[in-house]
Amino acid sequence: MRLDELGEWGLIDRLKRFASPEGGGLRDDCAVVESAGGRMLVTTDALVGGVHFDAAFMSWRDIGYRSLAASVSDLAASGAQGACRYVVALGAPGHLRVEEIEEIYAGMAELGRETGASLVGGDTVQSAVAFLSITAFAPVERPLLRAGAAQGEGVYASGTLGAAAAGLARLLRGEPPETAERFLRPLPRVALGAALARAGAGACADVSDGLYPELLAISSASNVGIIVDEAALPLVPDVPTDEALRYAYGGGEDFELVFTASDAVDLASLATTGVPMRRIGEVTGGEPGVRVRRGGRVEPLVARGYQHFGGGDA
Amino acid sequence: MRLDELGEWGLIDRLKRFASPEGGGLRDDCAVVESAGGRMLVTTDALVGGVHFDAAFMSWRDIGYRSLAASVSDLAASGAQGACRYVVALGAPGHLRVEEIEEIYAGMAELGRETGASLVGGDTVQSAVAFLSITAFAPVERPLLRAGAAQGEGVYASGTLGAAAAGLARLLRGEPPETAERFLRPLPRVALGAALARAGAGACADVSDGLYPELLAISSASNVGIIVDEAALPLVPDVPTDEALRYAYGGGEDFELVFTASDAVDLASLATTGVPMRRIGEVTGGEPGVRVRRGGRVEPLVARGYQHFGGGDA
Repeated sequence: MRLDELGEWGLIDRLKRFASPEGGGLRDDCAVVESAGGRMLVTTDALVGGVHFDAAFMSWRDIGYRSLAASVSDLAASGAQGACRYVVALGAPGHLRVEEIEEIYAGMAELGRETGASLVGGDTVQSAVAFLSITAFAPVERPLLRAGAAQGEGVYASGTLGAAAAGLARLLRGEPPETAERFLRPLPRVALGAALARAGAGACADVSDGLYPELLAISSASNVGIIVDEAALPLVPDVPTDEALRYAYGGGEDFELVFTASDAVDLASLATTGVPMRRIGEVTGGEPGVRVRRGGRVEPLVARGYQHFGGGDA
Repeated sequence: MRLDELGEWGLIDRLKRFASPEGGGLRDDCAVVESAGGRMLVTTDALVGGVHFDAAFMSWRDIGYRSLAASVSDLAASGAQGACRYVVALGAPGHLRVEEIEEIYAGMAELGRETGASLVGGDTVQSAVAFLSITAFAPVERPLLRAGAAQGEGVYASGTLGAAAAGLARLLRGEPPETAERFLRPLPRVALGAALARAGAGACADVSDGLYPELLAISSASNVGIIVDEAALPLVPDVPTDEALRYAYGGGEDFELVFTASDAVDLASLATTGVPMRRIGEVTGGEPGVRVRRGGRVEPLVARGYQHFGGGDA
């Protein structure tokens, strides 16, 4: 079978028998491993020129910043309790300018200054296609997993959903970078993720591929249903509601957190993180799946997240 | 300046200011990081189709095995004291067959069974060019570094030097895979590296790019001279001496260890690892550099290791 027929999730299903049961990392954003006296989160992500980034409409500094932001966000969503360390493997065409490569690392350092992430190693190789592979790790006490949701919990989201996708749409229309701040300079929710783990939240994920695929993954991993109150979603302003909903459900790389929490969790105590949060739905029993409450009716929500290899449904 | 003008080491020199001083990982094979209650080694390596591996003359299983062997060997050479865990980022053309991808992971699992390495996470992305990026980590107590050599120590090598390069040459001449076992199935010196760290060895490196560049890197990092006794080198048999020397000095991916140790180090105690070791030279004072003793004369050794970007001297 060809890879593009199988799709990424199908591939992961076929590969997970090669992974240590300890890891869980083929399904969750991070692998949890015991180190001597402590636990550590590890996440690895590859980004390919022309597929995941394009120097034609963002700078190499933007590319570095955003690439590392995805990894730091994975750690935050998993409840990391300390500073992130990371290593970078860079594949670069021989004709690439050194200054451009430096800009990639400068962009990562920029995010590092905001989040405490530090580069501790790497590799650079020649490649006809540019790629970046980042592995990041951080200590953790109680990891937040997609499988942590339970019936009766509320579903919450931080910040505004779809702001990165809205910014990307503006960039693609030729508007200036200042209008795409949330796409070019997303700030992972490091303090919030750490606080959620301490406060006893249920499931958690960062919105890297859009709200719909993230909630579907939580629903499936936790074997619960989820109902979204569409009127409660924190949408981007200044665009038609239909467009804002499309950005929220299917637009990726916001790096906001979606999480579940029982009424026993003291969310008010999280106000110290300074991140706005809103209740956007509830965890139900029954079949896994994501439904939406629109007006008085509850109906299935069907949308499509980003698919790396084209095949299969999200 | 173009990247291919600068060369890989020049690039690393320009990038290391972005790295945490904690890491050291841009110069050594591994970054040493403190985890809660323990220390951990981390190494990352990228391999690109057509540059570092070629499915035309080795199987995808070979490619997986050898790629992970390089990472496990980096950990061994740094004195890892426990099982390696690793994550893999795979870039794959959409037309690649799933069975081929599985073979890559099966090859890694094969090495894992021999060395205790376990996969704990990963990422797969579409890429016009195939690449593998592996990040591996393991606990460590006293890391072995290239900077650990001191005047008066002996220089030692494990096993046979150049056997992988000799095997590759046979493969390229069209001889069957059985004649290239040491190239296709190198076994990293995991037990020896751990024992060397406990026994108090000085510097250590694995021979990934040939004996000459490894010794030059130790010499430069430790600010010492090194003299190699050419007659003492454990060369491959059955080929002319000139060819065997070329394989040893410049042939990579043996994954044997070269290390330094004072007379106070009890090397006899390392016999329990079952790995043959031989004294191949000595650490001297004076200017950094690698010289060779041939018959009664000592002269500079000039050779070239593999250079990723073509520019500069090794």
